[in-house]
Amino acid sequence: MINPFDDTYFMKRALQEAETAFDKNEVPIGAVIVIKNQIIARAHNLTETLNDVTAHAEMQAFTAASDYLGGKYLRDCTLYVTLEPCQMCAGASYWTQIGKIVYGARDEHRGFKHYNTQLHPKTKVIGGILEFECSEIIKRFFIEKRNLN
Amino acid sequence: MINPFDDTYFMKRALQEAETAFDKNEVPIGAVIVIKNQIIARAHNLTETLNDVTAHAEMQAFTAASDYLGGKYLRDCTLYVTLEPCQMCAGASYWTQIGKIVYGARDEHRGFKHYNTQLHPKTKVIGGILEFECSEIIKRFFIEKRNLN
Repeated sequence: MINPFDDTYFMKRALQEAETAFDKNEVPIGAVIVIKNQIIARAHNLTETLNDVTAHAEMQAFTAASDYLGGKYLRDCTLYVTLEPCQMCAGASYWTQIGKIVYGARDEHRGFKHYNTQLHPKTKVIGGILEFECSEIIKRFFIEKRNLN
Repeated sequence: MINPFDDTYFMKRALQEAETAFDKNEVPIGAVIVIKNQIIARAHNLTETLNDVTAHAEMQAFTAASDYLGGKYLRDCTLYVTLEPCQMCAGASYWTQIGKIVYGARDEHRGFKHYNTQLHPKTKVIGGILEFECSEIIKRFFIEKRNLN
């Protein structure tokens, strides 16, 4: 039987969040957190709107998911995020003890892999799901921004 | 002339925040952010109260300081924090471009130095201000907790 709830399905939901960010003139990065095929948190980058460099999609999603579950830890959850998490977000994921991180596009300059940020030993990582789409929306954002200035 | 507003003065203010955390049954870590000798943000660890592992003193202080200044960046600010920041908080400080980080006690296992978290190239770091007091309050917290259980 085909499972309709695969990594691509949930990454598409994260991409919808990135589109929402795009429409708000935010760098378009989106995230969802999933437990047992159910989305329990949705978030997108809000650094400009909130005037807060810590308002990354992942940070908001961690807070929302903990709130939903009524527990601090996200051991049975998966984070889907359109861009490879940065040091801050990967560092936050360490504290959540999240079970799995699935990201779309690689961030070669600011991603946690470049900096060797330590994840929780129980956190699995998969990269490159809908990589083209996740990368493309960010490129499109900066091209449009450049053309407007 | 003696400057009353030295690193020890502001670390004492951060320690007061740690005491407030202690009274709330939170791991006692406190932080203040200062610009031109003025405290513009005070915060303490609230991970238990908010049920949120990202609610470290530093994260809240960054958000509050940006809100106060009306700008995302904290280039002319100094963060005083009683314990060496973790990967998440150090990673957040990178995005704030904060001018200086002053911490009290070293965190040998979870601190950013152990993990080589990359700070912003313009961020200066000083450690060991009121180290004994900052470390002592955390030890006292865990001793009391152990005796209660």
